Amino acid sequence: MGESELPEADTERDLDELDEDDRLRPEFVRAVLDAVEEGDVDAARALVEPLHPADIADLFELVPHEQRGALAHAVSDLLDADVFAEMNDYVREDLIDALTPTEVADLAAELDTDDAVAIIEDMEPEDQREVLRALDPDDRAAIEEALSYPEESAGRLMQRDLVAVPEHWTVGDVITYLRGHEELTTDFWEVFVVDPGHRPVGTCALSWILRTPRWVPVADVMAREQTLIPVDMDQEEVALRFQKYALISAAVVDGAGRLVGMITVDDVVHIIQQEAGEDVLRLSGAGEGDINEPIRLTVRTRLMWLLINLPTAMLAATVVGLFDERIARFAVLAQLMGIVSGMGGNAGTQTLAVVVRALATNQLTSSNTMRMIWRELRIAASNGSALGLVVGAGCYFWSGNPALAVVFGLALLINNVVAGLAGVFVPITLDRFDVDPAVSSSVFVTMCTDTMGFLSFLGLATLWGLGG
Amino acid sequence: MGESELPEADTERDLDELDEDDRLRPEFVRAVLDAVEEGDVDAARALVEPLHPADIADLFELVPHEQRGALAHAVSDLLDADVFAEMNDYVREDLIDALTPTEVADLAAELDTDDAVAIIEDMEPEDQREVLRALDPDDRAAIEEALSYPEESAGRLMQRDLVAVPEHWTVGDVITYLRGHEELTTDFWEVFVVDPGHRPVGTCALSWILRTPRWVPVADVMAREQTLIPVDMDQEEVALRFQKYALISAAVVDGAGRLVGMITVDDVVHIIQQEAGEDVLRLSGAGEGDINEPIRLTVRTRLMWLLINLPTAMLAATVVGLFDERIARFAVLAQLMGIVSGMGGNAGTQTLAVVVRALATNQLTSSNTMRMIWRELRIAASNGSALGLVVGAGCYFWSGNPALAVVFGLALLINNVVAGLAGVFVPITLDRFDVDPAVSSSVFVTMCTDTMGFLSFLGLATLWGLGG
Repeated sequence: MGESELPEADTERDLDELDEDDRLRPEFVRAVLDAVEEGDVDAARALVEPLHPADIADLFELVPHEQRGALAHAVSDLLDADVFAEMNDYVREDLIDALTPTEVADLAAELDTDDAVAIIEDMEPEDQREVLRALDPDDRAAIEEALSYPEESAGRLMQRDLVAVPEHWTVGDVITYLRGHEELTTDFWEVFVVDPGHRPVGTCALSWILRTPRWVPVADVMAREQTLIPVDMDQEEVALRFQKYALISAAVVDGAGRLVGMITVDDVVHIIQQEAGEDVLRLSGAGEGDINEPIRLTVRTRLMWLLINLPTAMLAATVVGLFDERIARFAVLAQLMGIVSGMGGNAGTQTLAVVVRALATNQLTSSNTMRMIWRELRIAASNGSALGLVVGAGCYFWSGNPALAVVFGLALLINNVVAGLAGVFVPITLDRFDVDPAVSSSVFVTMCTDTMGFLSFLGLATLWGLGG
Repeated sequence: MGESELPEADTERDLDELDEDDRLRPEFVRAVLDAVEEGDVDAARALVEPLHPADIADLFELVPHEQRGALAHAVSDLLDADVFAEMNDYVREDLIDALTPTEVADLAAELDTDDAVAIIEDMEPEDQREVLRALDPDDRAAIEEALSYPEESAGRLMQRDLVAVPEHWTVGDVITYLRGHEELTTDFWEVFVVDPGHRPVGTCALSWILRTPRWVPVADVMAREQTLIPVDMDQEEVALRFQKYALISAAVVDGAGRLVGMITVDDVVHIIQQEAGEDVLRLSGAGEGDINEPIRLTVRTRLMWLLINLPTAMLAATVVGLFDERIARFAVLAQLMGIVSGMGGNAGTQTLAVVVRALATNQLTSSNTMRMIWRELRIAASNGSALGLVVGAGCYFWSGNPALAVVFGLALLINNVVAGLAGVFVPITLDRFDVDPAVSSSVFVTMCTDTMGFLSFLGLATLWGLGG
């Protein structure tokens, strides 16, 4: 039957180029670059050819900026649309800049609408127009329509190639239609059933079609309960909806409820990953955190954040300044005050991380806000008491000064409670005002824990008359 | 054709119970709880019945712990396997504890293997045995086998119900087989083609089967290049592989390469989301960060983290202690030193977040480590210089003391560079030693920025003879 002629190695993606985590091995990357540097195009091509498009895209991300052009030149015939679709935005821009508008148009014509849009949307307006002119009218219309939707909306994410059938068809009609129309997409997992106004009335998984006799009407096998995506919905909401309802694909509808496109889960998976990972980057003020971003953008984003944090650090310093005479008389206060503010900062960050994640995943809503606040207050009180006791006892043994130990322990308890409350109130309040809590919370929480840390410790020390 | 009899409202998931973000409205949750409290089971049922299983699961998560039992009692017939599969682990345990082993077995029998395992794996060994005894032998064997794989591995995640066909079959054979075998799963998107030893040789998307004439051999339409998942692979790696290669489903193979199960993307999506979101929780020492976790577990996890951070705070305090005489003479040092350590901490957190994400998404490998270090060093140097200038100038205008201004600015520059280097070296080193960089990095980075912040500022002040 000829099976023995099939290359065995091809049946499993377990090539030597990849390590156990599917990352390209450094020796492999080195070998490709060496071949490119020596001008040995054939050797470079031979190395790169067996790779999956996603791995070719990774290869371009892993090599230094300066060498990407030479590599692209060496393996230009392997650089197909799939590779570009998988590539990091900045790296893709690098390469696209090196191509002519006609070459970009050829690439775009090969791609699904969503991937073509991803390539074209970041180009300069003039280059964009040139690429669009070079496309054939159908592709151009599809891409122009996608570009008319807001960035990061369902309209940009969807593909227009989909299979929609009228509800009076039978399963057999659907199969005959699919077999008879070569031009239909093959990249679909469900068939949408529409009414005469092209509004979706049901969805039919391909497995149901395959398991049903030809004479059965599709209206009898389709699921009427479907999750529709408005075309202007933000991609983050799209991702949450896919995740919540475990969708494989979903119909996108315009304002009049007409079917205009389809989003499949593979387009959404990287958004889920990206949006979930963004929190840590935003909370720490690292912007997009893309390691392929041009360095001046990174410097600008991070410096802006540091400058925003500067006034809060100065505010805390001003609080310390209120007590400078006492510190001059009793310098041990300067030594310990950083522990109070620092431990409060740690506790605040813990609470903040939990609340930001709970908000982002829709687990924290107005139904359970009060419960969450009460929960965090109890956690803060018990951790604050425990820490206060440990630290107070340690301080007593170290300094032999019971008053200092009590003040120190008490300040730690107070600042832990401040941290817990700030960690929960700040993000919830920002969220109510539709400000992304991940972006702006930590400035306010740090401000609270720093100033209240110093104020509680130095203030209590003053009340107690420590250091005379 | 009777379409007009179909309830219109069912065709779109846009019910009044949900807000625009697919979250249950607080008034709705309140109404359900009121009905339950008043003992009006019919009213509660009527409210809950139209909900999607995922929303019923959310409802249980949103109501307080004490009321979950009563709610479950009121809507017990709506609590099917799908609802349990969507539910948060802790909330599910709450409810499962209230059921008898036979009831749990009835639930488990309805579920796919992976969902049944998720329910059973957390039960007490004795209850687990009782549930397994109550299952019919086939289900029991499937679940026992799944439980024999390590936690969080592909073996726990996979379902055993799949469609596998021999490679000599035609497309028509496959369709006939699917139509003729009622007992086959309907929850599949690809058919696996296997050799006589039950080893996968290719994968066939259902759309290809539907679009191909019956007489064509499946071997001619299947993709031979497939991504196989080893049964003992960690679920995080599985998720990365799905994402990288944009998979909808994948065959799981045992050590001998035999097909033992299938993982579909909907099982992986929540892992992708969870793993990506975990970084922010781990970096901040918030453990799992699950808001449904029993509070004593949360207190323990977070307190442990705070106690681990205590020695680093004390180390920094010890550094300050080295300079206590100088601080006593010139208390303004105590005021400004917190700005140096705090701004360094902020810069370190930025770098750390970027590096941890890049490691987690396999974007940072040994091929580009040196480039990353060099990149972060340049960012730190330019941000440090900018901040040092701003802060030094501000200090000069405020204090009129040029020596203090220079020391302050210089210390900020030094600590920014320390922060950048620590932010990149610490996670990369931990990753090399197979320690999760998200869990342990920030302790070390904070230690560096705190101690070096104080040491550089107070040390330079001493060298310069500030405060006599």
